Amino acid sequence: MSIETIIGKTVSRWMEGKGDFSDVVISSRIRLARNLEGYPFPNVLSESVAGEVITAVQDAVAKISHEPGPLEFFNLASLSALERFILVEKHLISPIHAESPVGRSVLLKEDQSVSIMVNEEDHLRIQCILPGLNLNDAWSFASQIDDLLEDTLNISYSEILGYLTACPTNVGTGLRASAMVHLPGLVLTHQVNLVLGLLPQLGLAVRGLYGEGSEIIGNLFQVSNQVTIGKTEEDILSNISAVVSQIVDREREARQAMLSEAKDQLEDKVWRAFGTLANARMMPAHEALTLLSDLRLGMDLGIITCPQPEVYNELIVITSPAYLQYLTGREMSAAALDVERAKLIRSRLCL
Amino acid sequence: MSIETIIGKTVSRWMEGKGDFSDVVISSRIRLARNLEGYPFPNVLSESVAGEVITAVQDAVAKISHEPGPLEFFNLASLSALERFILVEKHLISPIHAESPVGRSVLLKEDQSVSIMVNEEDHLRIQCILPGLNLNDAWSFASQIDDLLEDTLNISYSEILGYLTACPTNVGTGLRASAMVHLPGLVLTHQVNLVLGLLPQLGLAVRGLYGEGSEIIGNLFQVSNQVTIGKTEEDILSNISAVVSQIVDREREARQAMLSEAKDQLEDKVWRAFGTLANARMMPAHEALTLLSDLRLGMDLGIITCPQPEVYNELIVITSPAYLQYLTGREMSAAALDVERAKLIRSRLCL
Repeated sequence: MSIETIIGKTVSRWMEGKGDFSDVVISSRIRLARNLEGYPFPNVLSESVAGEVITAVQDAVAKISHEPGPLEFFNLASLSALERFILVEKHLISPIHAESPVGRSVLLKEDQSVSIMVNEEDHLRIQCILPGLNLNDAWSFASQIDDLLEDTLNISYSEILGYLTACPTNVGTGLRASAMVHLPGLVLTHQVNLVLGLLPQLGLAVRGLYGEGSEIIGNLFQVSNQVTIGKTEEDILSNISAVVSQIVDREREARQAMLSEAKDQLEDKVWRAFGTLANARMMPAHEALTLLSDLRLGMDLGIITCPQPEVYNELIVITSPAYLQYLTGREMSAAALDVERAKLIRSRLCL
Repeated sequence: MSIETIIGKTVSRWMEGKGDFSDVVISSRIRLARNLEGYPFPNVLSESVAGEVITAVQDAVAKISHEPGPLEFFNLASLSALERFILVEKHLISPIHAESPVGRSVLLKEDQSVSIMVNEEDHLRIQCILPGLNLNDAWSFASQIDDLLEDTLNISYSEILGYLTACPTNVGTGLRASAMVHLPGLVLTHQVNLVLGLLPQLGLAVRGLYGEGSEIIGNLFQVSNQVTIGKTEEDILSNISAVVSQIVDREREARQAMLSEAKDQLEDKVWRAFGTLANARMMPAHEALTLLSDLRLGMDLGIITCPQPEVYNELIVITSPAYLQYLTGREMSAAALDVERAKLIRSRLCL
């Protein structure tokens, strides 16, 4: 399996089919931070020792024969900058991992549901993404991989603190569970700050589409746990699942309130978004995400029945700058990218 | 022929077919101001004397057997306010004429190319509208009617001053010639003030879609002569025709410059307008005119080949508030009007 195969596959597993609450929850992600005993943390790792860590992980992964199925190894430094940034857009690696590729690598499952970053902030970042609200299955997958790796690798673990990590905020379970939620109803009814403002008190954080420090666009929010220590994995998962399902309820209420109180305005918003997406000849990335959000809302409320939600999931990834550059096979100006983005969106919406 | 027949006919003669320069000049209009000797001007006319003027005009019109064909008489006070405002939107009567209907009337030709307002600012306002730049034919029609009426009516005329009118600005020929021009190219390239700013020096005035004092919307401008005295009708017409054809040249140059320098942006603008018009569920009047202007520009440049320019001509009239109210047959809130306007536009654009 080449990087071209991974990248060329526009539809990742989390974009397909429907999970629970998939009218609001786009995807669920689990990330486990792990480190190998006897090696410094990656931020102080020389290139040669980083290579030793990578080799140890590769050997351990090679011994995994059954589930989660084959994981392909990629040395980040051997990928082009464009390829690395596409992996970021596909949520398979972090921006930090893409920006400094030397001594770093990633292991990927072909359906893009599993990725393992090696030598990011920690030696191992095991990640699993699934569609809808399904943190438990994502956790099972990630945990299974973790167990299989621990059969071979000597993982830093303290009986008192739990898993040891480069940053104290990950110590303990090393678990970050997050759900990407689409909240146009709460945004349009000006309730989003009220609802999401309660999350810090519940030990949860909110971020944008591309994680920490990223802007909120397209009404997409990532809700994740802040605290990784002092609780079991099960407690962390049940807390975030409960909160996310509360958010889903609020979002659905907001949507229904708009449908009953401002149906014309809502239908207008949805159809205008469709009309613009299906006809524009230049489409900036930010506007695309905003209009796709309106369109997705219309799909979820049955205002517009074609195209399907899967098209939305695919488009929010493949219309990102790096992926678009890859699809067209050449370096482009921002204006030329906008033309290609518009063309790609039209091809998906106008069948 | 009832007022319903006139009003129900959505397409007026000036909206059909193509005149000269019809990519820029929507319509040409001639208006002649005439007054009957022995009667005070309408602003000081009692209702009963106003009635005498109307009767005299009716009698004179009844004697016209051949061209311009039958002219139907309507007492404005017998029309509803809605019907009167539709006549304004169709450019058949002036806003002033619609607002104070008592003692006023109008004579209309079925194809809506000819209208004669009785007791507006002057006793007679003979008007003819044709498509494209065609002031000469419009003048011939209006003049022919004028001649036929003068066979019967005693028109106020001074050998020194020419035709006498209520307002000194109309004295002389009593002729107002105007062309409605669509100038998106000059507006988008920020040249419109420069080009139209020269007109006062050439004895011409610029107004909005609904005449004097009306706002500029949809990039539509009415260019007309300021001076009615000291020149022959032929001089007035050849002056305005020459200036308008210069404006047409500048507008075409601006459009071609945009096509060669900003083709993507231009195509984007046109297709977004189409997408929004063809999909919106609420469409305010002002936005409709703005988007229809973009769409019409695209039609004229061959960017979009369907719908045809005639659809634009029809839509700029039938999406006006009064006409829309008439089409739906009921009084509506502004929001409900926006819904109906969107529906009407979709029905014309999405075949």
